[in-house]
Amino acid sequence: MTHPTWPTRGGPQDLFYARSNTRGLPTIVRGEGIFVFDKEGNRYIDVVSGAFTAALGQGNRRVLEAMVRQGETLSYSYVRVARHEPNLELTRRIADLAGPGFERCHLTSGGSEAVEMGIKFLRQYALAKGMPAKTRVITLMPSYHGGTLATLGWTGDEDIPAVWHGMTVPSAKIPAPLSYRPSAGVSAEDGARASAEALERTILEIGPDRVLAFMFEPVGGQSTGANVPHDLFFREAHRICRRHGVFLVYDEVMAAVRTGSFLAAQRRPDCRPDIVITAKGIGAGYVPMGVMLAPATMVDELAGLTGFNLSHTYNANPIACAAGAAVVDEIVERGLIAAAVTVGNHVRQRLEALKERSPIVGDVRGEGLLLAIEYVRDKRTKATFPDAIYASDRSRQIGLSHGLMLYARRQNGGRFGEWSIVSPPLTITLEQADDLVDRLERTLADFTDEMVREGVL
Amino acid sequence: MTHPTWPTRGGPQDLFYARSNTRGLPTIVRGEGIFVFDKEGNRYIDVVSGAFTAALGQGNRRVLEAMVRQGETLSYSYVRVARHEPNLELTRRIADLAGPGFERCHLTSGGSEAVEMGIKFLRQYALAKGMPAKTRVITLMPSYHGGTLATLGWTGDEDIPAVWHGMTVPSAKIPAPLSYRPSAGVSAEDGARASAEALERTILEIGPDRVLAFMFEPVGGQSTGANVPHDLFFREAHRICRRHGVFLVYDEVMAAVRTGSFLAAQRRPDCRPDIVITAKGIGAGYVPMGVMLAPATMVDELAGLTGFNLSHTYNANPIACAAGAAVVDEIVERGLIAAAVTVGNHVRQRLEALKERSPIVGDVRGEGLLLAIEYVRDKRTKATFPDAIYASDRSRQIGLSHGLMLYARRQNGGRFGEWSIVSPPLTITLEQADDLVDRLERTLADFTDEMVREGVL
Repeated sequence: MTHPTWPTRGGPQDLFYARSNTRGLPTIVRGEGIFVFDKEGNRYIDVVSGAFTAALGQGNRRVLEAMVRQGETLSYSYVRVARHEPNLELTRRIADLAGPGFERCHLTSGGSEAVEMGIKFLRQYALAKGMPAKTRVITLMPSYHGGTLATLGWTGDEDIPAVWHGMTVPSAKIPAPLSYRPSAGVSAEDGARASAEALERTILEIGPDRVLAFMFEPVGGQSTGANVPHDLFFREAHRICRRHGVFLVYDEVMAAVRTGSFLAAQRRPDCRPDIVITAKGIGAGYVPMGVMLAPATMVDELAGLTGFNLSHTYNANPIACAAGAAVVDEIVERGLIAAAVTVGNHVRQRLEALKERSPIVGDVRGEGLLLAIEYVRDKRTKATFPDAIYASDRSRQIGLSHGLMLYARRQNGGRFGEWSIVSPPLTITLEQADDLVDRLERTLADFTDEMVREGVL
Repeated sequence: MTHPTWPTRGGPQDLFYARSNTRGLPTIVRGEGIFVFDKEGNRYIDVVSGAFTAALGQGNRRVLEAMVRQGETLSYSYVRVARHEPNLELTRRIADLAGPGFERCHLTSGGSEAVEMGIKFLRQYALAKGMPAKTRVITLMPSYHGGTLATLGWTGDEDIPAVWHGMTVPSAKIPAPLSYRPSAGVSAEDGARASAEALERTILEIGPDRVLAFMFEPVGGQSTGANVPHDLFFREAHRICRRHGVFLVYDEVMAAVRTGSFLAAQRRPDCRPDIVITAKGIGAGYVPMGVMLAPATMVDELAGLTGFNLSHTYNANPIACAAGAAVVDEIVERGLIAAAVTVGNHVRQRLEALKERSPIVGDVRGEGLLLAIEYVRDKRTKATFPDAIYASDRSRQIGLSHGLMLYARRQNGGRFGEWSIVSPPLTITLEQADDLVDRLERTLADFTDEMVREGVL
């Protein structure tokens, strides 16, 4: 049963994954800025920051020094037993950047935990305020909210119930406001309107007294290829949630830091969500970190009632907090939030030009440095490639030979399309970004040639 | 609403908790070995290793150096995109220590994630092997398995349904084989037999084809006060699970490393579980870390079928793996697993002597350096203190004035008793352990005096 080249004991994490998904995974031995190097010495541009995570790139000295200094001073303390300064340092920085409505920060060890903490916080608040029937969550199809059983239940992936039915409580799903493939009408606005109508209809069907929260990604991630909902959707979702007493949650696990403001939520102050979840950009790959941001009014009111008393062992641990504070300092002092816009706009223009030249790029979308190109077999009909081609993984494999580390993970079996995300470290220079796009264009050219040779195009 | 002394923005994690639970939390500024120091310069022995976590104590240079060295070399890599050496280094060490039946290691960022991954792995395996109805989990009442919604559903705490009903899928609960308060008969063996009978009855009631797993803690944690089930329960649970095709899972998030062998599971090779979960001792407070251990046969078989394809961003990340490998090296080279027995037996003898002298210590139990003393108002009847006293938190608060950092978190509203756990860093010396017990005795004397003054005793 055991593969002859696999170690008898131990082995890499991917030994757990389907063998068909782990063909040709490189072994990475070194990183430097936006680059990673495999054991044969090949250099790759990390096009997706590992997993949309390494916002500062590899080997940031300031973050590493903060970690070791904190470890020498106080390496561990548990949040139920004592307080410590690194916790205060990090939450102050985050709250300062997040601004009004997001004064309190609850820290976890990753995005799934933080998404769960956000929904659990709202549940505990609703219960304490005399709304005990509020347990149901509404989310978008497609969407991604995490890998714990609860967040799998909230994630919009049609393949999830086949495996996890009966082991999680699914959210009610409404059609996502996809800009390229609207669920109704012909424009992104039509689709956004249909999604908003579905939201209100779903709330009324379940009963507003039973609906706890509506959660969505203000800029999508892997599940939608950086989809940005039409403005109408933000306004309507906010209005509908307010009208029916449903909490509004932004899942910014991927979006925060990289889309033009610290939180995407800050760009639309008139339709502010009740809470925001973020994660990847704050730990930046150095420490597992997730953040749930909530208004002081809610947190302090709940603390005077029942309190929100859940915790994990590593919530707000000193080394992680010190790392997070150093990451935030780097982001602020190096102006990386603004840089994401400058470089992102440049990359976007170049990707738009690439789209014009390429027969297989149907759409370019996203904000800042959370961008995506969508693969199509036919630009006019938006037809996708056949399943068996696994277009996004084909381009990932070809990309390796052009010095690119791309990411492929097809959700919903590709039914909503396939794409490659372009979300490099925020520290990428314009020159490096040009190099990235040049290599991506060569990758797509090779991919196109293959498809022509194989008779697919 | 906001408390006048709380910061307007940011603040410590405990601002989310009930105010009544966070009275008098010290602010810790420094740690050294088994000690932590507050900002007034007071020194405390960390009686519970933070949260049963800091197995090596504070400020371990080797671990910190491994982290910073790894961060300089390769700070982040994602398990779906690439392999890396630190992952191999850590899993090889763990598998070598764990021995036959536990060749594969799946790494997460904490215990809850690892418990979830274990159950999800078994579900995916059952599904791939043509047992699609297997979704139900059976656990003990009381028990603790984590803080995510799924693990809250599996945790044995009677207060959980009131808050989380409808948001998680609860496990079926059977009475825990509590040694001090057996659920049936008068002896621990009677109780263990009753628990085993309840397990088999429950499997048959649900239907063996629908029961995925039975999970329990081989040495209990906070929820049972280090309860050690009677030997009969281990044998019977194993036999019953085998007979009915139910997977057996040991939750050793707390127990591993500190109870006399790397895994408690290794001490009973004849009734080995299918998978084991551990966490706290492997990251030791330096990095969020959880481990799911499974046989290579199962993992490799599943990889050839559907694979187990779930992942979190920080699973097996390089810095965490490097830290984990250094922690394991320290544990091995310093002989800390054996030390836990030597020091643990000494502490246990002293606690037994203390029990004889103290009117409020009803039981001493546990294994190695995972011990507990149980508080009673009446040793003969085993009557607990009144709820309002919150005996375990009273002793925690008094302990601070005697230089002890104890832990209190009453689950099940104290219905199964209240206790203080004694689980210091494994690096504690015999002299330091004596000092710890001396301070604990003074704490209990003060507590007893208070109870006499208040007319409770």
